[in-house]
Amino acid sequence: MSTPSYDFADVAEAARSIVEAGRFLYQQGWSPATSSNYSRRIGDRHVAITVSGRHKGQLTESDVMVVDLQGKPVQSRAKPSAETLLHTVLYELYPEAGAVLHTHSVKATVLSRLTPPGQVYEVQGYEIQKAFPGIDSHEGTLRIPVFDNTQDIPALAEQTQRWFTDNPQQPGYLIRGHGLYTWGKTMADCLRHVEAFEFLFACELETMRVQS
Amino acid sequence: MSTPSYDFADVAEAARSIVEAGRFLYQQGWSPATSSNYSRRIGDRHVAITVSGRHKGQLTESDVMVVDLQGKPVQSRAKPSAETLLHTVLYELYPEAGAVLHTHSVKATVLSRLTPPGQVYEVQGYEIQKAFPGIDSHEGTLRIPVFDNTQDIPALAEQTQRWFTDNPQQPGYLIRGHGLYTWGKTMADCLRHVEAFEFLFACELETMRVQS
Amino acid sequence: MSTPSYDFADVAEAARSIVEAGRFLYQQGWSPATSSNYSRRIGDRHVAITVSGRHKGQLTESDVMVVDLQGKPVQSRAKPSAETLLHTVLYELYPEAGAVLHTHSVKATVLSRLTPPGQVYEVQGYEIQKAFPGIDSHEGTLRIPVFDNTQDIPALAEQTQRWFTDNPQQPGYLIRGHGLYTWGKTMADCLRHVEAFEFLFACELETMRVQS
Amino acid sequence: MSTPSYDFADVAEAARSIVEAGRFLYQQGWSPATSSNYSRRIGDRHVAITVSGRHKGQLTESDVMVVDLQGKPVQSRAKPSAETLLHTVLYELYPEAGAVLHTHSVKATVLSRLTPPGQVYEVQGYEIQKAFPGIDSHEGTLRIPVFDNTQDIPALAEQTQRWFTDNPQQPGYLIRGHGLYTWGKTMADCLRHVEAFEFLFACELETMRVQS
Repeated sequence: MSTPSYDFADVAEAARSIVEAGRFLYQQGWSPATSSNYSRRIGDRHVAITVSGRHKGQLTESDVMVVDLQGKPVQSRAKPSAETLLHTVLYELYPEAGAVLHTHSVKATVLSRLTPPGQVYEVQGYEIQKAFPGIDSHEGTLRIPVFDNTQDIPALAEQTQRWFTDNPQQPGYLIRGHGLYTWGKTMADCLRHVEAFEFLFACELETMRVQS
Repeated sequence: MSTPSYDFADVAEAARSIVEAGRFLYQQGWSPATSSNYSRRIGDRHVAITVSGRHKGQLTESDVMVVDLQGKPVQSRAKPSAETLLHTVLYELYPEAGAVLHTHSVKATVLSRLTPPGQVYEVQGYEIQKAFPGIDSHEGTLRIPVFDNTQDIPALAEQTQRWFTDNPQQPGYLIRGHGLYTWGKTMADCLRHVEAFEFLFACELETMRVQS
Repeated sequence: MSTPSYDFADVAEAARSIVEAGRFLYQQGWSPATSSNYSRRIGDRHVAITVSGRHKGQLTESDVMVVDLQGKPVQSRAKPSAETLLHTVLYELYPEAGAVLHTHSVKATVLSRLTPPGQVYEVQGYEIQKAFPGIDSHEGTLRIPVFDNTQDIPALAEQTQRWFTDNPQQPGYLIRGHGLYTWGKTMADCLRHVEAFEFLFACELETMRVQS
Repeated sequence: MSTPSYDFADVAEAARSIVEAGRFLYQQGWSPATSSNYSRRIGDRHVAITVSGRHKGQLTESDVMVVDLQGKPVQSRAKPSAETLLHTVLYELYPEAGAVLHTHSVKATVLSRLTPPGQVYEVQGYEIQKAFPGIDSHEGTLRIPVFDNTQDIPALAEQTQRWFTDNPQQPGYLIRGHGLYTWGKTMADCLRHVEAFEFLFACELETMRVQS
């Protein structure tokens, strides 16, 4: 086995940013009960990702491990997140993506369960849509696909790959009863996307409540 | 009277974990106004439990006392939680349980009051169900019994004992207008169960609101 | 003018507890935008109370002043809270009261506005009712009078005096669109009452939402 | 070019107060995902304002820049907030205004979207109305205009100028799907206004939910 083509300093920096992101996301209530998983791209062919089942508000650097783009552990005996392939598919689709965050909030869960199978959730007219890359007006439509939940992760990975190959400009998706996936060039960008999505979910549910 | 069969170091460690759990649970708003009680198993025949009526966000080690499995104080003149028997029954039923938490949130209170007498509250299709032991899919049904509230704790203890003898795989219960009981191998496991239950209660109420 | 009959150390201790209470209550969102006022009894004939119009999350000891039981400033050129008489009336009615807190939360405001004029808001069947003094079961009924808001504080003070003279066992009241008044033997007791009331208001509104 | 007519010490003090305001407003959830912008008046003819696109909870003094009352950068190569003209118009209209805050909360967003075009949102009977300058009773009516969102900021600036020229006593406005603008003599006054508006929005939405 040859030496992996990444720099240890990059792993350390990625781990640090994942630990910090976890502290923030847990504190917001978006990653409860050891749910969620987070990753950063490392060099050309690797990803730093959270080890399976850890408390996201109490992560340390040793709760982060390296996998290759097929989701195989590299230089580690730990078990990566069960949903690692959902991350690696996104890094392959989006060469500019440097971070992927999967969160698991009450609002994402409820909204995804309220969306009928096969339907894409759409929002429009929110200034916050400008938080996503390439959007400079509130007038466009943001389309959020909602995939059925499954424990068959390779199958789900393939589904997401197909949908985003056809809709590359959309910035995230929901899994029904399970949560949000979004990505960004940097961890800061990716966190901004999570915040913008959570803001939109909160607005949509609040509106439904008032109008129901 | 013979010397109790537990180690002081275990009591100290249990007290510390109870104090920390209280700070967290109070801060979440799940243990307001001196409500709630928490315990840890100590050795084979004892339990460390919160003293009655203390502020759960301001616990110190001296707010924790030892009782035997009949709920009698050991080496202490303090008054244990009025609901001590609800804890000891669970330690007898579940030999692997190392911690029991009773919390008292708005959402647990409301959901339990909305559930008609005699009905078991059921949830299904949530990924977070995997936070409970032995569950590896969102597809099963989690069954949460709702017991009528009463100030007759021995009677309620017996009721819970009967129900969980018949349904040992279920991880917690509600008391109407009063709150949640759940347990776990370790305090960390038990806190994860509280978080998962609160997440589910929040999702269910949010869904009801939107659909009402 | 004779020297006031209280001890400076009592004023200092009262001020400290008011500053701390303010930090907590503001942080909970129950005292926004310089609303609310807090007091402590000092000796037999005096009260320490917040100066009018201060930021409740940023109080210092110099934002607390002494008034007599007629609400007149003592040893101070500051202006006491406009609602000082609502406090002093309670200290006269309840000789055991050592602290009075008036808070101004969203939930107290909304619930009080939803209650028709002349109606007493009643709650029943909540375990948290036991947080109030002299209540040892969830089965009783807690009665919360809702007074019309007015800028005529002496008139409102008289109204509250009449109602609580007839209903001395009730632990608090609402002013419509304005907030909660409650009291306790110590500041800790009084804070527990605020928490219990806020818990009840949250439960009641959540239930209304789901059932509307 | 002549030396600008302001004192560096004023810029430093303004920047510090903007950084602090951002930390508070972000933490309340009212400025998510790099939304919002804040300003302070500097001398007679200048304004210190946040640089475009910064994380409002992580501002440092170098995220604040100076513009003139036409919105042109002064002594800076940075890009001021896209909505700078909405600030400068207010400083011209209100000579006593020393601070302007634009926030972007879920509740302001939802309430503004629920208000039909052309309609002014009105609230009445809330004690908290007294948090605004010149109001000493809950009995008046607070009128909050809701402007349509647009990316044409000069046009929107003109609209707000016209409305507040006719209604100078009103303390703030909403942009549909976008958020709140309010101002005050000092930053502390302005923050109090934000809190009072957010309180009112929360009350109104909670009432709608219960009554829907």
